[in-house]
Amino acid sequence: MADKKPRIVIVGAGFGGVKLAKLFAKDDVEVTLVDRHNFHLFQPLLYQVSTAVLSTDEIAYPIRTFFRKNKNVEFFMAKAQGVDQERKVLLTNHGEIAYDYLILAAGATTNFFGMENVEKNSFGMKTLQEAIHIRNHVLHMFERANKHEDNEEERRRMLSFVVVGGGPTGIEEAGAISELIGIQKKEYHHLDFNEVSVSLIEATDNVLPMMAPNLRDHTVKVLERKGVNVMLNTQVVDYDGNTLKLKDGREIPTRTVIWAAGVKAVPFIANCGGEVDRAGRVVVNEKLQVKGSENVFAIGDCANFHHGTERPLPTVAPVATQQAQVAHDNIMKLIHGQSDLADFHYKDLGAMATIGRGEAVVNKTSMNPQLTGFIAWCAWMFVHLIRLAGAHTNLTVAIKWMWNLLSGTRLGRIITNIQL
Amino acid sequence: MADKKPRIVIVGAGFGGVKLAKLFAKDDVEVTLVDRHNFHLFQPLLYQVSTAVLSTDEIAYPIRTFFRKNKNVEFFMAKAQGVDQERKVLLTNHGEIAYDYLILAAGATTNFFGMENVEKNSFGMKTLQEAIHIRNHVLHMFERANKHEDNEEERRRMLSFVVVGGGPTGIEEAGAISELIGIQKKEYHHLDFNEVSVSLIEATDNVLPMMAPNLRDHTVKVLERKGVNVMLNTQVVDYDGNTLKLKDGREIPTRTVIWAAGVKAVPFIANCGGEVDRAGRVVVNEKLQVKGSENVFAIGDCANFHHGTERPLPTVAPVATQQAQVAHDNIMKLIHGQSDLADFHYKDLGAMATIGRGEAVVNKTSMNPQLTGFIAWCAWMFVHLIRLAGAHTNLTVAIKWMWNLLSGTRLGRIITNIQL
Repeated sequence: MADKKPRIVIVGAGFGGVKLAKLFAKDDVEVTLVDRHNFHLFQPLLYQVSTAVLSTDEIAYPIRTFFRKNKNVEFFMAKAQGVDQERKVLLTNHGEIAYDYLILAAGATTNFFGMENVEKNSFGMKTLQEAIHIRNHVLHMFERANKHEDNEEERRRMLSFVVVGGGPTGIEEAGAISELIGIQKKEYHHLDFNEVSVSLIEATDNVLPMMAPNLRDHTVKVLERKGVNVMLNTQVVDYDGNTLKLKDGREIPTRTVIWAAGVKAVPFIANCGGEVDRAGRVVVNEKLQVKGSENVFAIGDCANFHHGTERPLPTVAPVATQQAQVAHDNIMKLIHGQSDLADFHYKDLGAMATIGRGEAVVNKTSMNPQLTGFIAWCAWMFVHLIRLAGAHTNLTVAIKWMWNLLSGTRLGRIITNIQL
Repeated sequence: MADKKPRIVIVGAGFGGVKLAKLFAKDDVEVTLVDRHNFHLFQPLLYQVSTAVLSTDEIAYPIRTFFRKNKNVEFFMAKAQGVDQERKVLLTNHGEIAYDYLILAAGATTNFFGMENVEKNSFGMKTLQEAIHIRNHVLHMFERANKHEDNEEERRRMLSFVVVGGGPTGIEEAGAISELIGIQKKEYHHLDFNEVSVSLIEATDNVLPMMAPNLRDHTVKVLERKGVNVMLNTQVVDYDGNTLKLKDGREIPTRTVIWAAGVKAVPFIANCGGEVDRAGRVVVNEKLQVKGSENVFAIGDCANFHHGTERPLPTVAPVATQQAQVAHDNIMKLIHGQSDLADFHYKDLGAMATIGRGEAVVNKTSMNPQLTGFIAWCAWMFVHLIRLAGAHTNLTVAIKWMWNLLSGTRLGRIITNIQL
């Protein structure tokens, strides 16, 4: 081991994984970053691709470009399948990768809570491909409805859009679809837009659980003003692609259900040799080590970190990046033979969500005030723009947002698959 | 007929079809524009999507947005299948559309000259989907080669890129791939770029047939300086996806063949009741009427217009848009009962082609001088930017081109399909 550098393997190039690789890039170690995609995805703006505001490559950044100058960081495009902790190897569909230290930063996927029909017939909103599918499908529904001149029932079914889940993703998607409809309205000269509807379904009694009660009420009011039919205390039980069935017996005829009602860790986590919770997350100790391992760590949406309360940490970027720092520091301590590993403590930076053009809510923390309306939207825009990867991307995205705000059009409304 | 407006049906929303619909939008007629896509494609920049310079929505513009204010123009998304001239109806996969006047502006598709294996295993370059496939495939080849550490033959096969056809599309594609390789080189720390190659295969003895001889020689020199292996007087006979076979017996091991060696009219043209030529184009008279019909016209790449020489008109936008004007004027004359239809005369505006970043050739005409190098590239850029549809698109594309010129990176290098 004297002349061999420690091998660090990171699974997942999300916010946590990329941060980790950037930190390790400066150390005397060999880093392998594994992801099934060749890009880092800026997930918070996925809803803008799904609603034709932004292009795919504005929220997807080539992973290798981050590490152009870091010869000790290698990207390996593959699907992680499991971990053999005994032999210290990561198993992938392109062979094994030996590690000295492994960090699981593989993220989350949609949780359909075992409802197979819903999973099969509705759209998840976690990957770039899913966002493109939603865009193509929603746009296509208008074209198809436009041709069904003689069948109102079928037309209404095609023009009824349902989003399930009152978290930030569901709120933002419902708001963005309702605005998309306003744009479509100008361009379908023969379609009756009274037949178009957007519904937001939430199982609990309010939206945005992480926000203060006044912001939650405000959000519902803004959504309703935008024409979104907000259905609280409503549970989905089945969906066959044509009719959404609710627990209270009601039915909604619709061809479009977008599911943003829950997440779970990616299935690969179950094959890593640690203890997993109900949502598939691997349990880590206060040092972020997977229970029972010294050299396997987990961070972000795929890790279950106990922090005093029953609720897990939110599935947001700051958790992953803050954990990345601690995991990096602890691994470097182990490499240097030090045993005083640090504990992780989450610093809550607040929460924000847009409810469409010129409207957002920002939750109060020690760092920032509680905001609503246009000023909250500006704050939201600023925070997202500076965090976007890619030098000219910030500029082109800013131009598109401004254009969208002022002109109310979306040039991203192209259907890239053909379903004639 | 007294109180019923004449029904104009246009097949195809390319340069010709959109120009026609815009002209008819100002007349007292009902227009239906039919296309299988919901977007107008700016085909001259397709090679930039296929090589990760631009995003899809920068060269694709929602058709309905053109006609937002024109209530007499209706878009109908469908695949045209044929024409029944007797009954005056266009047949589509979504039913029939009755017309009083019909204009075929359906464009061209790739011509593989009957070589079925080549068609099956190589990439065409006429649609947005094909450009995305090329981008995904080329980028993926680098990722796959990077994992084949122990098999040089397989690596070289993956890293050998062949473009067939020495017209503008082939030239531009080969130049853009060679530059893409320069960018990739900075990011694959363990790949030997001596194993990467780009070849341009042309059956005749020179490239760019529409250009002056000195510009053709210049183009070949620039391509060779960029590392493109230009193979003139070379004919392809077969391709199985692994090995490209040439007529002289040579073989090129390659996983990537991009076919830009010929076009033919879309197959639908054969079902329109007119006389078609060897390339599937429908023969029109000097008034642009389909032979034997008074009220069916054809323009652009799908029309065969005799203009004195054996060679057909070039398959470029100016032919289509100039013909659109004449077809429109002639149809309006027919509607008004006038019989003095105008003849079409093509005004050649010259030709231009880029050979990559900062290099282009512009052919001399009465309108513009003969140019090469950076100044030609600036002229090319200017002409393409002002013709791009979409207000902010011009701005975002200009930003990307400038960024690409100065920084030498391409952020569009994302693989949106997964072929793990």
